[in-house]
Amino acid sequence: MSQDHSSFQSPFTWRYASPEMRAIWSEAHKRRLWRRIWVALAEAQADFGLVTAAQVADLQSHADQIDIARALQIEAEIKHDLMAEIKAFAEQCPIGGGIIHLGATSMDIEDNADALRMRDSLDLIRTRVKALLASFAAKIDEYADVPTMAFTHLQPAEPTTIGYRLAQYAQDLLIDLDELSHVRRGLKGKGFKGAVGTSASYIELLGSASQRDELETRVMLTLGLPAFNATTQTYPRKQDWLALNALAGLAQSLNKFAFDLRVLQSPPIGEWREPFGAKQVGSSAMPFKRNPINAEKIDSLARYLAQLPRVAWDDAAVSLLERTLDDSANRRLILPE
Amino acid sequence: MSQDHSSFQSPFTWRYASPEMRAIWSEAHKRRLWRRIWVALAEAQADFGLVTAAQVADLQSHADQIDIARALQIEAEIKHDLMAEIKAFAEQCPIGGGIIHLGATSMDIEDNADALRMRDSLDLIRTRVKALLASFAAKIDEYADVPTMAFTHLQPAEPTTIGYRLAQYAQDLLIDLDELSHVRRGLKGKGFKGAVGTSASYIELLGSASQRDELETRVMLTLGLPAFNATTQTYPRKQDWLALNALAGLAQSLNKFAFDLRVLQSPPIGEWREPFGAKQVGSSAMPFKRNPINAEKIDSLARYLAQLPRVAWDDAAVSLLERTLDDSANRRLILPE
Amino acid sequence: MSQDHSSFQSPFTWRYASPEMRAIWSEAHKRRLWRRIWVALAEAQADFGLVTAAQVADLQSHADQIDIARALQIEAEIKHDLMAEIKAFAEQCPIGGGIIHLGATSMDIEDNADALRMRDSLDLIRTRVKALLASFAAKIDEYADVPTMAFTHLQPAEPTTIGYRLAQYAQDLLIDLDELSHVRRGLKGKGFKGAVGTSASYIELLGSASQRDELETRVMLTLGLPAFNATTQTYPRKQDWLALNALAGLAQSLNKFAFDLRVLQSPPIGEWREPFGAKQVGSSAMPFKRNPINAEKIDSLARYLAQLPRVAWDDAAVSLLERTLDDSANRRLILPE
Amino acid sequence: MSQDHSSFQSPFTWRYASPEMRAIWSEAHKRRLWRRIWVALAEAQADFGLVTAAQVADLQSHADQIDIARALQIEAEIKHDLMAEIKAFAEQCPIGGGIIHLGATSMDIEDNADALRMRDSLDLIRTRVKALLASFAAKIDEYADVPTMAFTHLQPAEPTTIGYRLAQYAQDLLIDLDELSHVRRGLKGKGFKGAVGTSASYIELLGSASQRDELETRVMLTLGLPAFNATTQTYPRKQDWLALNALAGLAQSLNKFAFDLRVLQSPPIGEWREPFGAKQVGSSAMPFKRNPINAEKIDSLARYLAQLPRVAWDDAAVSLLERTLDDSANRRLILPE
Repeated sequence: MSQDHSSFQSPFTWRYASPEMRAIWSEAHKRRLWRRIWVALAEAQADFGLVTAAQVADLQSHADQIDIARALQIEAEIKHDLMAEIKAFAEQCPIGGGIIHLGATSMDIEDNADALRMRDSLDLIRTRVKALLASFAAKIDEYADVPTMAFTHLQPAEPTTIGYRLAQYAQDLLIDLDELSHVRRGLKGKGFKGAVGTSASYIELLGSASQRDELETRVMLTLGLPAFNATTQTYPRKQDWLALNALAGLAQSLNKFAFDLRVLQSPPIGEWREPFGAKQVGSSAMPFKRNPINAEKIDSLARYLAQLPRVAWDDAAVSLLERTLDDSANRRLILPE
Repeated sequence: MSQDHSSFQSPFTWRYASPEMRAIWSEAHKRRLWRRIWVALAEAQADFGLVTAAQVADLQSHADQIDIARALQIEAEIKHDLMAEIKAFAEQCPIGGGIIHLGATSMDIEDNADALRMRDSLDLIRTRVKALLASFAAKIDEYADVPTMAFTHLQPAEPTTIGYRLAQYAQDLLIDLDELSHVRRGLKGKGFKGAVGTSASYIELLGSASQRDELETRVMLTLGLPAFNATTQTYPRKQDWLALNALAGLAQSLNKFAFDLRVLQSPPIGEWREPFGAKQVGSSAMPFKRNPINAEKIDSLARYLAQLPRVAWDDAAVSLLERTLDDSANRRLILPE
Repeated sequence: MSQDHSSFQSPFTWRYASPEMRAIWSEAHKRRLWRRIWVALAEAQADFGLVTAAQVADLQSHADQIDIARALQIEAEIKHDLMAEIKAFAEQCPIGGGIIHLGATSMDIEDNADALRMRDSLDLIRTRVKALLASFAAKIDEYADVPTMAFTHLQPAEPTTIGYRLAQYAQDLLIDLDELSHVRRGLKGKGFKGAVGTSASYIELLGSASQRDELETRVMLTLGLPAFNATTQTYPRKQDWLALNALAGLAQSLNKFAFDLRVLQSPPIGEWREPFGAKQVGSSAMPFKRNPINAEKIDSLARYLAQLPRVAWDDAAVSLLERTLDDSANRRLILPE
Repeated sequence: MSQDHSSFQSPFTWRYASPEMRAIWSEAHKRRLWRRIWVALAEAQADFGLVTAAQVADLQSHADQIDIARALQIEAEIKHDLMAEIKAFAEQCPIGGGIIHLGATSMDIEDNADALRMRDSLDLIRTRVKALLASFAAKIDEYADVPTMAFTHLQPAEPTTIGYRLAQYAQDLLIDLDELSHVRRGLKGKGFKGAVGTSASYIELLGSASQRDELETRVMLTLGLPAFNATTQTYPRKQDWLALNALAGLAQSLNKFAFDLRVLQSPPIGEWREPFGAKQVGSSAMPFKRNPINAEKIDSLARYLAQLPRVAWDDAAVSLLERTLDDSANRRLILPE
């Protein structure tokens, strides 16, 4: 909770993001996921006789004891964050420490962890969008027959109803929800394919490609995510772009809704909007409906989010034969619920 | 075919786009679609007794006789392109001319025509992507076991195979095809809902909302496209953005493939790439494989296409209560196959 | 003037751009500039005894006789547009034909021609912006003391004057003009530096680097543009990006002005705006002031233009050691005056 | 220094930004600037007899005692960050507390503070760019005559020298420095113009517009920044866009340099690059030259920065008659030196 105000703090750290989203993208959670993946890998490797049950049990019992201070201390020496976490974990595990990360490359751990964080983020957002849609549904019914003036080119045109206008926003959000679910359904991890995607190190350990396939299947089952069929050192960055598009679509709908609201709450127009704007919605729990400041906040953040897909496009399109630095920290900075 | 070289000509007019795509987005085709929609509307209105069979037959028999010169002449006077087309059409139809556009607003015609052009464009592109995937499939089999060096960070890492590398590109394209099909499946027209989406003019003509629904269903069935449930004067511009995203995804995959190719064809690396680059692919009919100029062309156009979704995002997000000018002409300018 | 409506035509070809701008970016004008550069190069080479006065005179006398049909015919054979133009020019020049392009590489001609087209475009736009500022100046004086309500957050705040509000737009445009002039002042051509920027071919012809410098200085003086000190095969693409930024800045100001106008012309607010909106401006020759359709057109095009600098950013930032295809045709598509 | 790892932390908070830049954009520094502006305003108001010397002295003596904990406590009650800071400051000043912010509107304080932070950021970056240019100058001399192969289209073309290639990067950076200085020279604060830019509250206090002008001139002199002639509630957001463009230009040059470096350090090409890449530069203090990971980091951040100008474009172009939420925190997130 305490912030270091003598240095820059992202507004997403302490003003805009939800606590749940911040938790998903926290350093602590990331390291917990890494350890969970190492444990899942070791469990499966035990089935194939590569490691012992005692070693696995040792890892399991210390998986949640992350110690970031110690890990950063090690990283200061060896300049590699994931290797430092392995060493910090290993120090806690006298029996199993030596077999952590067996056969793996860094991105086997990091990329699967990122896919899991994206999964959880998408699920969280979908829950919020569903709740928002439920609010809209109630309002649409309530105002189905309340007449209001429709505007084209900001000129009064023909009458419509408040319920019908709200239905447009809801229809947009339904499309967004469909897109979010489409991305969520297609979400995959890298699986366990080693340094260049050929799984060479695992095949060597296990003796055959089919055993490797079996190992990957088991671990991914534990993690609750399928794996891509083919990868380079990383999973295809196209996936990040698809996820950001779905979020940008949500931002787009909220932007339109909030912008309309700002126009409609302008007093010269607002007069005839009174029955809707004044009491009912004013007392609603939906924060962006109370005053234009919140609507402006939504539009401001939406505008920022609209620029992020292109960063992911570049990550996918200009990655050459290798991997660029992941922009994961940037790419899901905001969630304008 | 003849170009006016004393004035600016878009490179898409005479250099880059395919003849099929240019035809879909030609002025002539747009006007043919407009007329087809007017005819379909009149046919359905005849079922409801609003117009006569003779009027419909008159429209049908002149639907394909577009006369752009005459229409532009009228437009010069009345400053409205769609109204001018109505008048030009009506001049050709002594019997049915008076009932063209009955109950409709401009966007009932234009928006459905645009949705049809998007449908045909998407179908054309999907056909091309499928052909491209077939080419990849053949190459993947052919080079499945040909070893090559994998690069991470442009540094040689571990061996992989040419077939496996090609499979990455194909996997990307498969995702693109899935996205294109997803957009294609969800594609909808505005339907026939009048000036502000409430269908007031049609309900007045037909006497009831259920009759209006029935009319819309029949016309859209003829056009081969479902209609959105709720619209403003236009269909939700989110749809354009979704279509452009899918195209930008395709551009992304082609950009990566073409960029990799440019790096691999660089002689210092190219030496070991000879078996693949020199004869087999060199003789392929796929143009972007022959030389880096084409790969550069792909990357240059991809880079441009990557910027277009944001234009559509704005159209969807900042359209207030009205409609902005449609950027449809810009939005599907290029198809980098 | 006649358009081929059976194929796609860019809206900039026949709807939006000014005739002057279309002329600058026409195929014919580009080829005229190429020839002018070849002539200027030959003239300077004559001073150094590399070519004869008769050869130069022959080129001069045919420089304006461009024959695009013939050039395209040759291009169809040899697949190189600039080489085809050289051959078409040479066919017309029995005496000087053989010395066209002496020592030059394609980009010595194309890049300088592009810089000249940018120069003329910037000058044209600056003239238009100055005229627009003069219109604003007159209106600012006229309405200096006419009170109107100022809005913050679209809520009425305190009174201001129409003149003061207009002064904000004018101040924005003044900054734009300053940026356009800043880019114009800094504008440079590639000069004559050959295939990789080292001027090797010219130094070989002339015998010394200082002679080469002298040659470049003379030709650039004739063309009316300085040259960059160092180049690759092309001039730094950063220059294109700077020019597009200045144009995007202009689009930004026009977008704000047009958007404000759309809001202020909305009847609920419009009532108190009557003295300004109704007669005076309604009768003005400035098209975007007459009705919101034009303001919407400006906003729609501005939104598109806002996306173009990023294309040029990529051209400059991802050009590796070589040159990418120039996006010049795309980059100055629109000029929303 | 200590981070809260149970929640999201921006990578700019603890990984990428320089300590100096983080300090400029810290919460503490922002509040120190706010107080400095309040003191400067009070000092000038004392000259006009609006406040007493004792009141000013009281403010001066507590200006640096910011107490963020207390201010946040107050903000939790009143929901306004600047008003909360005023109250926290006033609690410390028994004599002068009552006259803080006299005649001012929030944006008179915030906007001038933001302009000051931009000024200091630009100065910091310009210092770094100059140092970088000095490094380049030394290397250009050192390698002026060391031959290397020039590549066009990633194909070996003609020889050039390492010094000449480095001169291209330096020329790009010189243009960037010129752009940064151009923005820096043009930088202005809002001045003191009240709620809608008309200075009504100050004119009322001082009795005349000329006195108001004099007051603004004095305060801005103290702050070391001129003021815009005309403003709305805020200074024109175009200024933010111009500053971000200059930063994006720098990112562009670094992106090209780093990308070239990554290609040149690829071993197949790298062999002949050894004399430059291996010892001399390897031992340089310039971090991005040591290994491709840093070059990739630059390209990754540059790609992100390239997207930020468009956010500022929107802030300037879509701000209607009011102000949107400032994206200042986002807009200068990174400085890839």
